[in-house]
Amino acid sequence: MTELERNLLAELDSLVLIDPHTHINPHAPASSTLADILGYHYYTELAHSSGMPRAHIEAPGLEPKDRVGRLVEALEQLDNTIQFHWLRTICSELFDFEDEQIGPANWERLYDLSLKKMSQPDWENEVLRKSGLEKVFLTNEFDDPLEGFDTNRYVPCLRTDDLVFKLEDAAVRTRLEKAAGSAVTTAGHLKKAIGTLFSHFTGRGARACAISLPPWFSPGKVEPAEAEAALAAVFSGNAASTEQRQQLSRFVFWTLAEFCAEFQLPFDLMIGVNRRVYEQGVFQGQDLFDMRVSLIQYRELFNAFPQVMFPVSVLGHTSNQELVSYAWIFPNVITNGHWWYSNIPTYIEMDTRSRLEAVPRNKQIGYYSDMYKLEFALPKFQMYRRILAKALAEDFVVGRRWPEIRAIELGRQVLRGNVEQIFKV
Amino acid sequence: MTELERNLLAELDSLVLIDPHTHINPHAPASSTLADILGYHYYTELAHSSGMPRAHIEAPGLEPKDRVGRLVEALEQLDNTIQFHWLRTICSELFDFEDEQIGPANWERLYDLSLKKMSQPDWENEVLRKSGLEKVFLTNEFDDPLEGFDTNRYVPCLRTDDLVFKLEDAAVRTRLEKAAGSAVTTAGHLKKAIGTLFSHFTGRGARACAISLPPWFSPGKVEPAEAEAALAAVFSGNAASTEQRQQLSRFVFWTLAEFCAEFQLPFDLMIGVNRRVYEQGVFQGQDLFDMRVSLIQYRELFNAFPQVMFPVSVLGHTSNQELVSYAWIFPNVITNGHWWYSNIPTYIEMDTRSRLEAVPRNKQIGYYSDMYKLEFALPKFQMYRRILAKALAEDFVVGRRWPEIRAIELGRQVLRGNVEQIFKV
Amino acid sequence: MTELERNLLAELDSLVLIDPHTHINPHAPASSTLADILGYHYYTELAHSSGMPRAHIEAPGLEPKDRVGRLVEALEQLDNTIQFHWLRTICSELFDFEDEQIGPANWERLYDLSLKKMSQPDWENEVLRKSGLEKVFLTNEFDDPLEGFDTNRYVPCLRTDDLVFKLEDAAVRTRLEKAAGSAVTTAGHLKKAIGTLFSHFTGRGARACAISLPPWFSPGKVEPAEAEAALAAVFSGNAASTEQRQQLSRFVFWTLAEFCAEFQLPFDLMIGVNRRVYEQGVFQGQDLFDMRVSLIQYRELFNAFPQVMFPVSVLGHTSNQELVSYAWIFPNVITNGHWWYSNIPTYIEMDTRSRLEAVPRNKQIGYYSDMYKLEFALPKFQMYRRILAKALAEDFVVGRRWPEIRAIELGRQVLRGNVEQIFKV
Repeated sequence: MTELERNLLAELDSLVLIDPHTHINPHAPASSTLADILGYHYYTELAHSSGMPRAHIEAPGLEPKDRVGRLVEALEQLDNTIQFHWLRTICSELFDFEDEQIGPANWERLYDLSLKKMSQPDWENEVLRKSGLEKVFLTNEFDDPLEGFDTNRYVPCLRTDDLVFKLEDAAVRTRLEKAAGSAVTTAGHLKKAIGTLFSHFTGRGARACAISLPPWFSPGKVEPAEAEAALAAVFSGNAASTEQRQQLSRFVFWTLAEFCAEFQLPFDLMIGVNRRVYEQGVFQGQDLFDMRVSLIQYRELFNAFPQVMFPVSVLGHTSNQELVSYAWIFPNVITNGHWWYSNIPTYIEMDTRSRLEAVPRNKQIGYYSDMYKLEFALPKFQMYRRILAKALAEDFVVGRRWPEIRAIELGRQVLRGNVEQIFKV
Repeated sequence: MTELERNLLAELDSLVLIDPHTHINPHAPASSTLADILGYHYYTELAHSSGMPRAHIEAPGLEPKDRVGRLVEALEQLDNTIQFHWLRTICSELFDFEDEQIGPANWERLYDLSLKKMSQPDWENEVLRKSGLEKVFLTNEFDDPLEGFDTNRYVPCLRTDDLVFKLEDAAVRTRLEKAAGSAVTTAGHLKKAIGTLFSHFTGRGARACAISLPPWFSPGKVEPAEAEAALAAVFSGNAASTEQRQQLSRFVFWTLAEFCAEFQLPFDLMIGVNRRVYEQGVFQGQDLFDMRVSLIQYRELFNAFPQVMFPVSVLGHTSNQELVSYAWIFPNVITNGHWWYSNIPTYIEMDTRSRLEAVPRNKQIGYYSDMYKLEFALPKFQMYRRILAKALAEDFVVGRRWPEIRAIELGRQVLRGNVEQIFKV
Repeated sequence: MTELERNLLAELDSLVLIDPHTHINPHAPASSTLADILGYHYYTELAHSSGMPRAHIEAPGLEPKDRVGRLVEALEQLDNTIQFHWLRTICSELFDFEDEQIGPANWERLYDLSLKKMSQPDWENEVLRKSGLEKVFLTNEFDDPLEGFDTNRYVPCLRTDDLVFKLEDAAVRTRLEKAAGSAVTTAGHLKKAIGTLFSHFTGRGARACAISLPPWFSPGKVEPAEAEAALAAVFSGNAASTEQRQQLSRFVFWTLAEFCAEFQLPFDLMIGVNRRVYEQGVFQGQDLFDMRVSLIQYRELFNAFPQVMFPVSVLGHTSNQELVSYAWIFPNVITNGHWWYSNIPTYIEMDTRSRLEAVPRNKQIGYYSDMYKLEFALPKFQMYRRILAKALAEDFVVGRRWPEIRAIELGRQVLRGNVEQIFKV
């Protein structure tokens, strides 16, 4: 790392951030034992992939410490991964545990040390402070009451996967009826119920609507009669056709976009995931993707809702150039972070550099952590900031002779300023 | 930049070049005001993308200076882009305007300074001289009379998009009949008319036939009877089917390839653009792409015309490896420049390096500017030459211990020599 | 190259390796004249691509020296390619020929010098020693008797392309019946015959089953009745439908996977090649690809055979992220080398870095040479080791502050250890 990169990184490190997409549970935001850390699907799925049987990892009734003891056995084959490097960073920066490796000989010391830290009454605030985080966006199920936590710190966000893709499940419909406080038996009811959810969520400070989408999905406007027929078929309890289910999905999706327009909510699109590809995989370690997806599938949507901001995440690095190009042309398409299988340095670096080169600076959300527990913001944002500092140093300060202060300002906008502007937070 | 890179770059900078693909109007090749520069679609579309309404940018009847005044407001959000860097380079190298940024406080000074420069009687020659350009390829509509300019300096090139994709438009047919001097009501007539265009163009020094192609297009030979039926359906004025229109497109395209063989013209294929994806976008800022295109779609064409050189440009960086591989195998496939959404440093660098590693050196056309006004050759070629110098330095002089002179010679061939050889210019 | 990279490279260079995929003929493993070197399809196809007619290259009855004399004429236009660099490395390291270029003036000296070396009785061992190779995997046709060579040094591997894709060819069926020692007229017979091949191959020390697959292929279980019908149609001699032929292919493929499970053989999948795209190309220089392939096509296979290891090679660099992700999730998916059109430094570097970042270290086979003659292992592995050393230096020792010894150990595992583990060799 050059001195220039170190200088830029130091400035980026000093920023206080808003994390615009996480899966934090606001009632238990921080980890309580190391099992919450090592239980993150990145570790369980990599451990399984490296050879550890799922039954060994997910044995029911395991005490947290025993679970950690098992997962530690796999780390020897994972210590090359960037995900292991996140763990090392957490251990070092949050738990004052400096050992280079984690294995049979030292994991219990780490366990005890971390337990002591996490048991401190102020641990949540301590993690946020050390991570430089001010606010954290949540991903709430549509029937979340959004009560019992500080919505100023933990910003609600309406997750809509179940509404779009699981209405054939009676349990989901029951949840919806309960949340909306009304029966849902027609497309008109459905629209009204969704409107009620938007009222509830925005009333509780929600700042975005969000959804993850499979590669085959292509949004489109559905005529009322078609929607009604599709809904009737799906709700009938008899097996609806694939086309009918997809029609209903399109109808719900389009309705969500309409409400995003009405309620002035950005609509986070996370494009490209195939669910349950590896059905015998560990929890949350079963999804993959098909790189043969194109943003051209969203052409009608982007044209129909110019007033809605669409922060778009793509699962595949190969989709990044389309994202760059669509954000360069469409005023309502925003580049959003580095998602899941693309969230590794080799791909982040190329994707970051290309975005900085060709997308207006006010349309780039640099990064979100996607974390389930607060401890992961620190290593993930640190990884991103190092790459961002390198890109700013090489491509702007050296490549275009920018003064450092301008490069820092660009970094600040991408890391923090745009989150404020786009989500009005 | 290392000293080695600087040395190589200095040598590349000293070359006098032929720009093998532009949209220059030979009757007004240079800009007359800064509005010609800032009116380039890269700036209008990025300004619009960053939030400026299209109506504000394209208000009818605006004076050039007022138009510039409006666009300047958007630059604050665009100064990170490589396209802004092109503008800065133009200002500095051609207008002696050295301010780092361009905004409300200084744009009028820039406007006046640049106006003074552009008003000099010798400005066109001055720009060519400073840009190190000797000849510039044009992209002429098929009915261009090609008169009133020096075809030795501004080399004609037959653009065929309208012939292949717009014959259903009566106005296009009328233009064709006028240009060919004969009625066109059968496939036989059409073929003959196209032959007349080739005679006219090559008689006026044309050195290439060119076309941009959508991702879904796949050329193929069409039997005469099928062509006749498709043409009749399309020309009938009643709505022809998609299949009939595509059949006619394939017939015209194949006919063009046949005449390229007969007239020994290279056929520039620019593969991958979807037109009018964002219909409310600014002029020339509406097109995008679908990365799901493959050169396998051109298999029949490349096999059928071994005697025709096909300089191929791909819109997507993700298509570059196919291009490299097809140029490595097919004698008639040439890698051609870095097109549009791929024309940003991150992608140029990878694409350049891979081509230098795996395509015979006599089959690579390094770069073209694609410019509409002469002033853009300088910053665009400068961008490319810096990347080329870096690749030559790192991969050849350092990586393979080549003497610098060999690396420079490779650079010269890619930048200039191959243009001469392939286009016989 | 930094001192750190040089140190790491020196350590990697000192490893003795097993080459896990080649096309070596164990009865003539080393070259006997320079024509064996320059006759490698990389040189003939690039020479042809650069402009040399196929008839000139493949003229029948040419003496080796005359053939070399012809191919040398093309080298001037190929000396930029990494494949030429392999040749230079061979000349320098194996033939003590240090000239920078190879052309009309010096090729005969090279020819004579190399002939002298290759004529030494111990040349095969000398090449292996200088290349640091201990064992070499073969790719044997299914009816190879596997006799007359040291199967400990030259490890047999069952190639199955003909079985899966060419059973419609009566000659292939005849070879199968002969190899299996029994008639094959039903799906049951076919299964039994394939089992006999597995017995024969594993009895002679085979360590893998291998196949190359076109982009459109998607494996799946075929019901016995369907298999029987498809086989009857294909074997009938009348033209079977595409669907019937593909059904039979799927049946044979699935049967191979079942025997891999039974015989505990890894199944090398080399995914993505379209055969005979350029039909007028030189021998082995006719194949290309379609980047629109996805590992999702292998979902059913990977789920159905958790006990079979699938070392997967992808032809397209654009497929690498899917490979990384599938290997990160599926315990039985292994990343395997850098194949053919992806085997150039620009792509190897990105692919290597991403794999090291996200795939468990015990699931990565770093490299194989894919060579036809022993002399090519040296330059190809050298190319890979340099890239690996750079990745280890930059991303691990510098980026993550690993001690050098850990980085070297990771390199050793990827280059050698995993080959031993996965293939039990």
